Amino acid sequence: MSQVLKSSVTLETLTNLAKRRGFVFQASEIYGGVAGVYDFGPLGVELAGNIKKAWWDYFVTTRANIYGLDSAILQHPKLWEASGHVAGFTDPMVEDVKNKKRYRADHLAGIDSNDLAELSKALKGKKSPDGNELSEPKVFNMMLATHLGAVEDKSTISYLRPETAGGIYVNFENVRETMRAKIPFGIGQVGKAFRNEISPRDWLFRKRELEQMELQYFVRPQNEKEEYENLRQITWDFFEKTIGLDKKKLKWHEHAKEERAHYAAAAHDVYYEFPLGFKELAGVHDRTDFDLKNHSKSSGKDLGFYDQAANERFTPYVMESSVGLDRLFMAVLSDAYYEEEVKGEKRVVLKLSPTLAPVQVAVLPLSKDEKLIPLALKVYEELKGTLRTEYDETQSIGKRYRRQDEIGTPLCVTIDFDSLKDKAVTVRDRDTMKQKRIKLSNLVENLEATQNE
Amino acid sequence: MSQVLKSSVTLETLTNLAKRRGFVFQASEIYGGVAGVYDFGPLGVELAGNIKKAWWDYFVTTRANIYGLDSAILQHPKLWEASGHVAGFTDPMVEDVKNKKRYRADHLAGIDSNDLAELSKALKGKKSPDGNELSEPKVFNMMLATHLGAVEDKSTISYLRPETAGGIYVNFENVRETMRAKIPFGIGQVGKAFRNEISPRDWLFRKRELEQMELQYFVRPQNEKEEYENLRQITWDFFEKTIGLDKKKLKWHEHAKEERAHYAAAAHDVYYEFPLGFKELAGVHDRTDFDLKNHSKSSGKDLGFYDQAANERFTPYVMESSVGLDRLFMAVLSDAYYEEEVKGEKRVVLKLSPTLAPVQVAVLPLSKDEKLIPLALKVYEELKGTLRTEYDETQSIGKRYRRQDEIGTPLCVTIDFDSLKDKAVTVRDRDTMKQKRIKLSNLVENLEATQNE
Repeated sequence: MSQVLKSSVTLETLTNLAKRRGFVFQASEIYGGVAGVYDFGPLGVELAGNIKKAWWDYFVTTRANIYGLDSAILQHPKLWEASGHVAGFTDPMVEDVKNKKRYRADHLAGIDSNDLAELSKALKGKKSPDGNELSEPKVFNMMLATHLGAVEDKSTISYLRPETAGGIYVNFENVRETMRAKIPFGIGQVGKAFRNEISPRDWLFRKRELEQMELQYFVRPQNEKEEYENLRQITWDFFEKTIGLDKKKLKWHEHAKEERAHYAAAAHDVYYEFPLGFKELAGVHDRTDFDLKNHSKSSGKDLGFYDQAANERFTPYVMESSVGLDRLFMAVLSDAYYEEEVKGEKRVVLKLSPTLAPVQVAVLPLSKDEKLIPLALKVYEELKGTLRTEYDETQSIGKRYRRQDEIGTPLCVTIDFDSLKDKAVTVRDRDTMKQKRIKLSNLVENLEATQNE
Repeated sequence: MSQVLKSSVTLETLTNLAKRRGFVFQASEIYGGVAGVYDFGPLGVELAGNIKKAWWDYFVTTRANIYGLDSAILQHPKLWEASGHVAGFTDPMVEDVKNKKRYRADHLAGIDSNDLAELSKALKGKKSPDGNELSEPKVFNMMLATHLGAVEDKSTISYLRPETAGGIYVNFENVRETMRAKIPFGIGQVGKAFRNEISPRDWLFRKRELEQMELQYFVRPQNEKEEYENLRQITWDFFEKTIGLDKKKLKWHEHAKEERAHYAAAAHDVYYEFPLGFKELAGVHDRTDFDLKNHSKSSGKDLGFYDQAANERFTPYVMESSVGLDRLFMAVLSDAYYEEEVKGEKRVVLKLSPTLAPVQVAVLPLSKDEKLIPLALKVYEELKGTLRTEYDETQSIGKRYRRQDEIGTPLCVTIDFDSLKDKAVTVRDRDTMKQKRIKLSNLVENLEATQNE
């Protein structure tokens, strides 16, 4: 009945669909937008919420030794000194000495390096894009800074967190004590992070205001390797089984030694084949005792663990699983995108799973005829307590089906004139486009069962 | 069996309970904390999440003409110029001319005024708390500012939103168009907002990093009064019926004309009797066409609505219902707090509803005896898919009951040695402390039914 024309999608097509159908808008669009900042529209907030819920259920709720946290965006600046972000979360920049515009030094130098001496050498004799002299390269911190309190000076500086992990480490002892947790245990968190990217790009891929879903898992040092491999497997399964991404579009990327952050003893990224090619979707890192040791030293509060049974005190190692919500949102949309030919016409369909779909069932009266509306509204009222349900009476039934296909609604329920007589409705399946007649008396049970298939 | 000793609570008692049991920690506590900023701990993130879900279900999901949104924290600075925040979201401040410390001018002057001339007069001859001369009073903007991009000057300034509403107004046309919405319709949003309070205080009541749950409802100008009264009723019902706060602790506070914001034609706060006394929990405001008119003017994009049937174009009026998540969190905890005398001993209990309780059921083996643990874990595994379930085998059963009472768990399931023979467990009710024996074969159904009573 239908033939797949395309199961891959360009970034442009995805961006347009997301805007046209209410998934993602550029922030402050009517004021010209803000680079690298986006708003989730009515369907996007539901899809993103369903992804976050899937992450939370999988990583936190269903695991007895994982605890949730929601730490603040504004933390004490000493946290980011101890973590190394104040000194090290930087990009090398050069300045046009005439008009003061700044550029990434490595981009202008045309080399892949963060070393200022190397960059300086490579930049010798080069000009800015406006043809002016360039300054010597300098480091530029990517944290967004603000000031808390009445005075604007160094004493009141505060940073918008560049990652959620920091708020977890400083709460290690609070969580351990209040939950009476024993090693191994973990702390999971979902929340916003901010990075002053000089060149935000590729839609949701490199944003300035982003969202992370992070698990920090605290283990015995001697179990480092085993726990690391275990967390890699758990993370992989999340994408393949819970979210259901196409396995062929997922792969591991192991960080070579020179690629790894200074604190990491091992690092593997999960790569997904985005419209941009294979790129980082998530990372699993063996952070050793770097974080807890540094925060112990800087705060003067010992973040070690005392094992009563073994009468032994040690600083736990941290195994991290870090997922970018925005990137996963992109991956889910691009994985679900299909173009098909149906009776000579193209249809666009998002084959989202019923767990993730913003709308699970659409209730559509065949026309706006006043005989149909009361029954259609009654069906809507009945379904909405159980499934994410939308009611739509605008436009022709064909246009409404196409809209529901494009937003990924698995099922459409159509109320027609026969419904008034036979007390039944037509249920249309998004993927097969097959229709079946279902009695109103067991519609809820039937649809629920279909969604859980 | 039990006698109520106290059904009210001081702020100090609540703060201590919240910290001791893992609801709320001070942000960056190990670094001395950040004034006015808090982290939600493992139980707090669940309680706050349940409150947010209750708001979303009530205001957004179950209403066909309300759409969700998740706009970014960083918006275009012009948004906050158009909204009046750059010019008007200010406090009057004076500076100690010697040590540059700043103070609220109205506090030092001892008068309740924002008028600079009046304040200047009242401050004549007064000294700073350190005994030094004071500057003339000046306005101080309460928005937190940062810079996006490589240069720090006026062209790159960006504000952390002081309220979520702004992101809704600038998306009015995006949502209307993609959802093909007709007036009246609304946009709901839950998210963080930031205010540089000079004197953050009263725990979660006056924070610098806070969270709001806001509905902006767009109506025909001629329906202003009726829609406003309707939204007041809906907002009140949320607190009384959905959240279930004590009716005697709720009341309306109508803003007198001089108390209202410049844009508001009418304003009513919902007051709750906090440990601090009756204070604002939520606000319902008739914002007229102030917002859409101003954003139309500043952006050059007409945010009017064209009614095809009536062939009429108008700028919708905005009715706003704005709830502070942190304040509602405080209200829920303080409403649920009881001290009772049981057999001569005091017990502290949070009588949270099963919908809001972080843990709905605790599974407790009577002791750590190895015969009991496998069955207890089996019960835990069975329950955790249906109810928010915690497993706890540490400490004596009496201490564990007390802990569950203090965190508001409605039901405890105890597995004892008889359970191995009679295939049944003891279910203890938090409020009545009555225990009943339930067969394992229908435990899930039984507990589910109890929670929904």
